Amino acid sequence: MILTVTLNAALDVSYDVDVVTPGASHRVRGVRARAGGKGINVARILHGFGHEVLVTGLAGGATGDAIRTDLAAAGLPESLTSIAAESRRTVSVVSRSTGEATLLNEPGPPVDAAEWGRLLDDVATLARTAAVVVLSGSLPPGVPRDAYAYLVRVARAGGALSIVDADGAALTDSLSAQPDAVKPNAAELVAASGINDPAAAAAWLLSNGARAVIATFGAAGIAALTPAGSWRAWLETRISPVNPTGAGDACTAAVAAGLAGGLPWPEILITAAAWSAAAVLTPVAGDVDAADVTRLLPQVRVEESHAARIDR
Amino acid sequence: MILTVTLNAALDVSYDVDVVTPGASHRVRGVRARAGGKGINVARILHGFGHEVLVTGLAGGATGDAIRTDLAAAGLPESLTSIAAESRRTVSVVSRSTGEATLLNEPGPPVDAAEWGRLLDDVATLARTAAVVVLSGSLPPGVPRDAYAYLVRVARAGGALSIVDADGAALTDSLSAQPDAVKPNAAELVAASGINDPAAAAAWLLSNGARAVIATFGAAGIAALTPAGSWRAWLETRISPVNPTGAGDACTAAVAAGLAGGLPWPEILITAAAWSAAAVLTPVAGDVDAADVTRLLPQVRVEESHAARIDR
Repeated sequence: MILTVTLNAALDVSYDVDVVTPGASHRVRGVRARAGGKGINVARILHGFGHEVLVTGLAGGATGDAIRTDLAAAGLPESLTSIAAESRRTVSVVSRSTGEATLLNEPGPPVDAAEWGRLLDDVATLARTAAVVVLSGSLPPGVPRDAYAYLVRVARAGGALSIVDADGAALTDSLSAQPDAVKPNAAELVAASGINDPAAAAAWLLSNGARAVIATFGAAGIAALTPAGSWRAWLETRISPVNPTGAGDACTAAVAAGLAGGLPWPEILITAAAWSAAAVLTPVAGDVDAADVTRLLPQVRVEESHAARIDR
Repeated sequence: MILTVTLNAALDVSYDVDVVTPGASHRVRGVRARAGGKGINVARILHGFGHEVLVTGLAGGATGDAIRTDLAAAGLPESLTSIAAESRRTVSVVSRSTGEATLLNEPGPPVDAAEWGRLLDDVATLARTAAVVVLSGSLPPGVPRDAYAYLVRVARAGGALSIVDADGAALTDSLSAQPDAVKPNAAELVAASGINDPAAAAAWLLSNGARAVIATFGAAGIAALTPAGSWRAWLETRISPVNPTGAGDACTAAVAAGLAGGLPWPEILITAAAWSAAAVLTPVAGDVDAADVTRLLPQVRVEESHAARIDR
């Protein structure tokens, strides 16, 4: 089982309007809502490919209830830890005329020490039956800055591997616990390390605790930097992205599936590149069409990149 | 007791952002939510002035629960009829830099025939202890177009007077039941009657069934057109509006209070002009500060307008 932890779970709401005009009153023509947050998106993708998953994290209030209801409707099992405050919503206002999305992201709900303690206990229990624990996304207020370091240790104590997909301090402060993989994109590499060169930044993350760095570079592909070697995978053909959001979650999902199955890094990268490319072809962030993956897989190239190899 | 009926009750959510930029991602810095919809706003104003009120209408889903919770927190008693679908939200995105509000109005929840029947039964019961029934706002999908005609008759059967504050067909189709008052603004007068001159449009509403037409004209004041005479009330001094939304609801509330108290039209208009003027001085739509009303009341002038008098 792959356990995904979403500390800042959200209800992702989408509004269809004719066109977004600041200062105007808009009739919303369509409303859709579904459970979101990066960890939940990862679980949804894995579930779509037949992997056994379990969703945990923090959820509260009526919005938390709506998140649980949507997970149940999607067939995604959950064991979310309840908090008193209301879970956040994200609102994506999509102009029908242009397809352009205007995003409104509510702040995360405040989490108190007792709630954080319960989450740690719950993850400790759930990790005992997990092969991999995925730690994705931002931290709500009140959660310690090194929350992911705690959770990596809890996962390891339960016998599970861990993947951190986070930004800034949430990523940097996880390194002390030596996560089995971290999955930054180019901007996150630079932000976390303070090093402007993404390759050097990836090496910095590796030498500062990450056991593997899986770095995503959009159309340029995905690189894996590990003590055992470095590889890069990319799509040989050009595709026309529909919605680039969600490619990172698809990559994280593929890495989780690969680690759970004990696959070698080059094979994991091939799957990750195909799932990520398929993710950008669907309009809804985080949706991956299996037919796209089947079509794209033969077009993925992978090679060992000796230059970037790190020995330590 | 004054019963307010809000068929399209809403949770009014307010988001603070730095500035609204179409196509951008916005961090929402503050979130506030409260129960809304015109009838609920009217009840809130009346309650603030010490009038006994009861909120009814239709509410469903988690958003319906949030509406009920907020009403309870505000001390507003409610007897909302439950529906299966989720009540709507309105989102007001306020730019901190300019104060400009961008509104996103979700469509109302679909209402089925059985739910509409239950609402009619509930209003029939509640109207028996009401002096005035206020029928405010838009109709959710599934409710008959002449919903307010039904409700005016149900109110009258219960021994209550009725006020309709609605737009377009919802207003026009209420007239057959001879509501005791209708409260259009200038645009609504024109839209409902198809007559471009507001005074002629008001006369049209009166001759087509309304027992009184209370027409609001912004800074130009409020006119009452009745078979017994016509009056106009206005504020002699200039005020600087902070938020014009909610002035109409304040007027409706004053008319409801006046009818409940059996006051003559000139006195009702004086109160309505003062409450409406006070409403535009507060940043939150529908809030009225009693101190503003005390200060503004002596500045209201009222006169009989013989020219507009209608005999029938």
